[in-house]
Amino acid sequence: MMPPIVILDRPQMGENIGAVARAMMNFGMRELRLVNPRDGWPNPKAHEMSANADVIIEAATVYEIFAEALADCHFVVAATARKRELDIPAYTPREAVGLLVEKSNEGQRVAIVLGGERAGLANDDIAHCQAICTIPTDPKNSSLNIAQSMVILGYEWWQAGIRDFGFGVTADQSPIPNPQPLLSTQAERQGLYDHLVQSLEKTNYFQHEGRAAVMQRNLRAMLAKLPLTSHQIQSLRGILRALSS
Amino acid sequence: MMPPIVILDRPQMGENIGAVARAMMNFGMRELRLVNPRDGWPNPKAHEMSANADVIIEAATVYEIFAEALADCHFVVAATARKRELDIPAYTPREAVGLLVEKSNEGQRVAIVLGGERAGLANDDIAHCQAICTIPTDPKNSSLNIAQSMVILGYEWWQAGIRDFGFGVTADQSPIPNPQPLLSTQAERQGLYDHLVQSLEKTNYFQHEGRAAVMQRNLRAMLAKLPLTSHQIQSLRGILRALSS
Repeated sequence: MMPPIVILDRPQMGENIGAVARAMMNFGMRELRLVNPRDGWPNPKAHEMSANADVIIEAATVYEIFAEALADCHFVVAATARKRELDIPAYTPREAVGLLVEKSNEGQRVAIVLGGERAGLANDDIAHCQAICTIPTDPKNSSLNIAQSMVILGYEWWQAGIRDFGFGVTADQSPIPNPQPLLSTQAERQGLYDHLVQSLEKTNYFQHEGRAAVMQRNLRAMLAKLPLTSHQIQSLRGILRALSS
Repeated sequence: MMPPIVILDRPQMGENIGAVARAMMNFGMRELRLVNPRDGWPNPKAHEMSANADVIIEAATVYEIFAEALADCHFVVAATARKRELDIPAYTPREAVGLLVEKSNEGQRVAIVLGGERAGLANDDIAHCQAICTIPTDPKNSSLNIAQSMVILGYEWWQAGIRDFGFGVTADQSPIPNPQPLLSTQAERQGLYDHLVQSLEKTNYFQHEGRAAVMQRNLRAMLAKLPLTSHQIQSLRGILRALSS
């Protein structure tokens, strides 16, 4: 399965191009195409922000005509605000990535278009695309730059890949993290409780008149509610031994 | 439901602090705390990258001590690579945000810690937190900066809000009342931890050669994971007083 090609339409700040490349590298994408970058190309500022994604920056190709940048693609998603006037289906990032996975898996060449930092993508350009992806944000503060959008789409791509194709599943980074710690048994809790009560009986803790039984019940209830592991019970008993010695 | 507080631990580039604030603004978060920003504070470069998030930058508060920045919080998630040596549960962003939503909905004060741009979060700082969030990436290119991490966590927060509470559909994020037993704050946990360590220092507990620091970190991590209420903290300190007298 080929990852999406990333196409930046009229990108402006070189730093943002670099940050896009960095996010691509993080999330398993490699091919970057630039349509009319404002400050020309190559651009040293793109290198500064690209971390170890120089390989992407150096291989990036430049186009003058938007349609040519996606000429060899089968399925292109444009990341942009919803365009009611265009009658192109709009998806969330998760949904859009689901489509990209599906199409790529069928052997289609897929791409993501980001761009128009100042004015957004032009309707004429969006009209080339098969789908729109709109990132949900606070409607009062909805402006995302291309690097932010790329991080979100990359993250969803990688998650979908882990889920569906096992990307990156190594010993160190499994998608489902927590091996469940061994929760203690009731017998272990009872051992801790007995140990605690015996330790406290040597002090003046229970010597409030007539309250010892209630205090012990409260201690037991507290221990019962805490999700203690076997290991934690051992640690707590070690502490008790030290404090009571 | 209160959105998470965002705590940046030893942030370096002002541009990244500004970009964090911008992402917070996009995704409905407002309160930013900085622990020892490298270049001091205020920092004009933070404003340059913050788009319309000046209100967050201007209200940001600065701390010298990490623990103080989260003293009033109940549930803190550290965004960091997995730490097998710490025995703190690790979650994906989606899972971690699910927990933040759940805890916030119970009335807990929740926070996200990002930081250590150069070296990552220190284990001693992570030990204060209740959970780790690890963003899945290509394991060969796993370095994300704080602004990228914030975009992903913010995006998941907003998505969860749309799904569960109708953010962006209704005008306001109305608080959902759901009083729960008073979970202890970090400051109360710190009080218990200090009390415990002081009590144990009077015994031979820490006298394994060279292991005292690790043992103390493990104690802190254990206390951080237990869902202790304020009342339970008081009870445990009463027990400590009795055992140490």
